[in-house]
Amino acid sequence: MTQLLNNVHAVILAGGSGTRFWPLSRETCPKQMLQIVGEDTLIRQTIKRINGFVPPENIWIVTTEDKAQDIKFHLESLGPLAKKIQFIKEPLGRNTAPAIGLAAIYLNNLSPDSIMVVMPSDHAIPDAQKFLSDLKVSIEGAEEDYLVTFGIKPNRPETGYGYIKVDKNTKAGVNGLLKVERFVEKPGLQTAKSYLSDGNYFWNSGIFIWKTSKILSEIKKHLPTLYKTLKEIESILFEPNKLNKPNKLKELYSSLESISIDYGIMERSADVLMVAGTFQWSDLGSWTALDEVIEKDDSGNILKGNTIDIGSQNSIVFSGERLVATIGLKDMVVVDTPDATLVIPKERVQEVRKIVETLKKNGREEHLLHKTVERPWGSYTVLEKGNGYKIKRVVLSPGAKLSLQLHRKRSEHWVVVSGEAKVTRENETYLVHTNESTYIPINTKHRLENPGEVVLQIIEVQNGDYVEENDIERFDDIYGRT
Amino acid sequence: MTQLLNNVHAVILAGGSGTRFWPLSRETCPKQMLQIVGEDTLIRQTIKRINGFVPPENIWIVTTEDKAQDIKFHLESLGPLAKKIQFIKEPLGRNTAPAIGLAAIYLNNLSPDSIMVVMPSDHAIPDAQKFLSDLKVSIEGAEEDYLVTFGIKPNRPETGYGYIKVDKNTKAGVNGLLKVERFVEKPGLQTAKSYLSDGNYFWNSGIFIWKTSKILSEIKKHLPTLYKTLKEIESILFEPNKLNKPNKLKELYSSLESISIDYGIMERSADVLMVAGTFQWSDLGSWTALDEVIEKDDSGNILKGNTIDIGSQNSIVFSGERLVATIGLKDMVVVDTPDATLVIPKERVQEVRKIVETLKKNGREEHLLHKTVERPWGSYTVLEKGNGYKIKRVVLSPGAKLSLQLHRKRSEHWVVVSGEAKVTRENETYLVHTNESTYIPINTKHRLENPGEVVLQIIEVQNGDYVEENDIERFDDIYGRT
Repeated sequence: MTQLLNNVHAVILAGGSGTRFWPLSRETCPKQMLQIVGEDTLIRQTIKRINGFVPPENIWIVTTEDKAQDIKFHLESLGPLAKKIQFIKEPLGRNTAPAIGLAAIYLNNLSPDSIMVVMPSDHAIPDAQKFLSDLKVSIEGAEEDYLVTFGIKPNRPETGYGYIKVDKNTKAGVNGLLKVERFVEKPGLQTAKSYLSDGNYFWNSGIFIWKTSKILSEIKKHLPTLYKTLKEIESILFEPNKLNKPNKLKELYSSLESISIDYGIMERSADVLMVAGTFQWSDLGSWTALDEVIEKDDSGNILKGNTIDIGSQNSIVFSGERLVATIGLKDMVVVDTPDATLVIPKERVQEVRKIVETLKKNGREEHLLHKTVERPWGSYTVLEKGNGYKIKRVVLSPGAKLSLQLHRKRSEHWVVVSGEAKVTRENETYLVHTNESTYIPINTKHRLENPGEVVLQIIEVQNGDYVEENDIERFDDIYGRT
Repeated sequence: MTQLLNNVHAVILAGGSGTRFWPLSRETCPKQMLQIVGEDTLIRQTIKRINGFVPPENIWIVTTEDKAQDIKFHLESLGPLAKKIQFIKEPLGRNTAPAIGLAAIYLNNLSPDSIMVVMPSDHAIPDAQKFLSDLKVSIEGAEEDYLVTFGIKPNRPETGYGYIKVDKNTKAGVNGLLKVERFVEKPGLQTAKSYLSDGNYFWNSGIFIWKTSKILSEIKKHLPTLYKTLKEIESILFEPNKLNKPNKLKELYSSLESISIDYGIMERSADVLMVAGTFQWSDLGSWTALDEVIEKDDSGNILKGNTIDIGSQNSIVFSGERLVATIGLKDMVVVDTPDATLVIPKERVQEVRKIVETLKKNGREEHLLHKTVERPWGSYTVLEKGNGYKIKRVVLSPGAKLSLQLHRKRSEHWVVVSGEAKVTRENETYLVHTNESTYIPINTKHRLENPGEVVLQIIEVQNGDYVEENDIERFDDIYGRT
């Protein structure tokens, strides 16, 4: 392990709502929380990649208030590290320039000379060592008061990325960094081909490195309205002896223009340098991006999960436990989840968002939640919902403890199918063992705990005219949800 | 209603195992038991179509012994009619010539002059009136000791059917019937086009009408070995004062050559006439046959169930309760069931059997059973099977009564979610109401009944190391399954 860089802060942007990987991504389970490629979810990979390069208390997650709790729960599996990670919560989503500005305000108050490494939470970077080695180079540029960005050397005429134009023969003053001439929008295929052969065009990775003081002075210069509002926000956040004013914060943040850091700052600043990244990178912008990061079989297919394929070519079949059988597909994507399946030609994957829009418009649920929902204490899976009942499998990690709660409109039967449950029901507390059951009447305070050292699984049969999640009153919760 | 034809018997062939409509068809739920088109399942439609033309006790189902009980249960919804339908059980499947020969032996013993109408159980014939009207004509030919078959006038150059060649200018002796010149195998596209324009070629419908005495004499002539064995079978089946010998029957039937009636008799006989059917007909030979029998939308699609489609063309999407979202498909078939999904181009639907073969070879279950299984008392749905447990929703029709039974390796928790259950547990009998539960320990005789007039639904949580269906000992069963 190299020496920790105490003045460097990792700012991880995790505000994405992720419709592009539907049906695997959902509103409550955006792309960064998916394990699409590699050994862990994208956001946990992002954290693990930078941890050790900077101290854990220098890792910041920037996300919106409504997503923060789910992400916090999601990170708990990182163990003690998770407790040290800090959150910067936007009152609502307002694109990357305000989000990064808000982070800069926080860090600048903490230490004016700190360096920010701004990273999306949902990109694939398989080789952490190469990334960190390039990062060291970029920090040298940031220390010289430059805005530094990573460009990725293209290996194909990609039309899905923006490009950065440099002149490889014009070295910047800092070792290994190149002066950026301009940023270029996503090109057409012919242009992308010319970029590929030119050699001076790099993919815009969306990873940025700079001093907090420098980015704030650039925001002041190029986005003065944003700067002014950020200063007002700062005065509320950091003035001592002042009451915190969440409504005022929300009002101020809402007033901000939704603008990206690329468009607002990077394209306008004269002080931008680029490091040519030596690491493999993908922004995983759509299902077809898997072709870049997952090894294909001899027919060009990526087959994951419970699949049987006969003679398909260049196709992606992503399944879970259900069987997906495919024959003779060509350039297709098939994605299966417990409650929804998507079938789409590769050339149209960008239109997945239209399905999500349709689901929203029709008041459906398949874009919101998965059947299995992660909770801080474990998870639950909705096995079936019918007229007057709902059946869940509830999984509690060892030591986990649900909130003390009550339902106004449903009773619950619990059957323990593995492990041992500790049940509180009004004034009594008792154990329920595997193959035993208990009953929680309507309007009865209750609590479920796993006192054992193995996973507890119960089957919960809810009875009632109304069996939705929001029929819950919490009285005490070790996860702070009362 | 026309007058019942008491000397006419409807012989419905229902031995098909149905892999072509996988994943909707399963070994225990073959094509004839699916409601693919029309208001009921294909076999029930077949029975309803002929009922009233012949008396109910003249309706015979020919199927294999292992399928007979499931079909019997499946027909129960036909009410009193179901009780009158008779079964002819083949010891095992041996193609249509032996099956029809066996039926002829039965009917010939009953009444030597009877006429058989042989019909597959899994074809689509939307207009029963036209069919019955053509059937009357065909019976006139059968009465004159001809083998009569229905030919269907082609409306497209179909390469999936066999053809019958007639000469329209050569009328047979019987009104409206045409002398058959020959039977033709499935043609290539060019040949099929020439057949279409020729006008003397008809699709071979697989529906036959003849006297039992006539078909037996034709079998004697063209398939003498089959005839000899059928006579041996007859001597066992109908000799009085002889013990029934199921093993001997099975041995004899197994020895028969697996040969179709078309190849064995129709192509060889000189006495074949054809009625040009005026009814719409499809043998529903594959998923693409739906294009012929179901109305398509403006883009040529058939979308059924919980689907969202954007811009697909000439595609079939068959879903149930799960969501299937499709974008931009062209000439594709997508079929979704609770435990398996199929995605296949129309031009390759014949290869579905390869998937079924793969499942068999790998010892999988997705070709055998659906998650929901029809039983004579209602149905059950497997909601989840895990390590040491299985969860089912069990639905009992009013008045239904499961067998008195016992499990050696599992206990069961029952939660009533609608209706009222009557439970027998060893020597006690008690009621369990909605939102109440009960427990059946391992090795405990028990019985579940629905004493009420509404449907009873219970959630059953099985606990045990072994939770398969075959852990059941039945002591008493109103459906004769002990």
